[in-house]
Amino acid sequence: MYLSKADIQSMQKVERLNLINSLSGIKPANLIGTIDQKGKENLAIFSSVVHLGSNPALFGFILRPQGDVRRHTHENIMSTGVYTINFVTTDFIQNAHYTSAKFDVSINEFEKSKLTPSYIDGYDAPFVKESPIKMGLQFVEEIPIKSNGTTLMVGQVEHIIMPDETMNNNGHLDLGALNVAGISGLNIYYSLTKKIQFPYVRKSFSLNDLKTD
Amino acid sequence: MYLSKADIQSMQKVERLNLINSLSGIKPANLIGTIDQKGKENLAIFSSVVHLGSNPALFGFILRPQGDVRRHTHENIMSTGVYTINFVTTDFIQNAHYTSAKFDVSINEFEKSKLTPSYIDGYDAPFVKESPIKMGLQFVEEIPIKSNGTTLMVGQVEHIIMPDETMNNNGHLDLGALNVAGISGLNIYYSLTKKIQFPYVRKSFSLNDLKTD
Repeated sequence: MYLSKADIQSMQKVERLNLINSLSGIKPANLIGTIDQKGKENLAIFSSVVHLGSNPALFGFILRPQGDVRRHTHENIMSTGVYTINFVTTDFIQNAHYTSAKFDVSINEFEKSKLTPSYIDGYDAPFVKESPIKMGLQFVEEIPIKSNGTTLMVGQVEHIIMPDETMNNNGHLDLGALNVAGISGLNIYYSLTKKIQFPYVRKSFSLNDLKTD
Repeated sequence: MYLSKADIQSMQKVERLNLINSLSGIKPANLIGTIDQKGKENLAIFSSVVHLGSNPALFGFILRPQGDVRRHTHENIMSTGVYTINFVTTDFIQNAHYTSAKFDVSINEFEKSKLTPSYIDGYDAPFVKESPIKMGLQFVEEIPIKSNGTTLMVGQVEHIIMPDETMNNNGHLDLGALNVAGISGLNIYYSLTKKIQFPYVRKSFSLNDLKTD
């Protein structure tokens, strides 16, 4: 099957939305938690978290140009400077997906989706108690993407909370063993099974010498 | 287990690299194919493709500030204006991972990794024949991320090649059925299993009324 640019443009809106979202492949399922200046909590699911660098530890995520879910998250980050990224596991996919509803600003998505906010001393943004891997970030910069009006939000990791012995001695995590969920498109959720781990490749390896770690 | 910003900064370099890369969650495994102005092919694995928009169909990916693998891809995109994104499946993970080696500019990664370039009329960048889902993009803009010197490369989808009947009537793909691979960290590969599909959430749904599609 072949689709040209013109074929893509002439597709029905929902079909194109699902296809193009699916074509970005498997994506991480994360809940982003924020509060406003009065302390009201907001929680929304995102699948666009991307690694930017490890030292300093920087992640980005994409905010769409409009939409209440994204706008509340953006307003809160701009006013408090902090937000949490919480891994969604296969144990609470339904609750996590429910945060994608267009709730009024007065609604607390934690309550609506039956998830539990938790806090650490000296840090304002709410973590999701049910999530095994939680990160607290400090906002760094917001970068406009002129091509379509979206925004890349950049933040630095300041807090990592995860179960003991999650990390092996090289710093790796087994996302499958932790029941971490992935997303394709906007609304299909996947479980993950670790297949194989390779070492860093060096020039001197030939393809046949590339053994698993 | 709790790690503060200071704990992260004081980790050993490789351990921090693996941990922070793992904390961006499951990521798509893609091979990006380009040619230089003399027609020499380049192929490199990336796990940072992110969806920016569906109309027009725009994807981004992150280029690191230095490193030969990234530099060759960048130079080729800037000189030809085109690049392909090819899904990695669990059938050729080892070949795909091998493209991450730091090959000299004179080396053709297709040959080294035993993958097959394929072309369509009127479009210069090489697709990966072994990949079931292939996209041809046109470069749109390059956006510097000041925080750490990385770059967001933005391109528009102009060609989609995939097996017949891959797409259901809503435009969705089942990445698990297609054996699409995911990556965590830099070198751990996962298979995907579709767990559940939800409809778009509307305000009138209560959590308990959220049924699967």
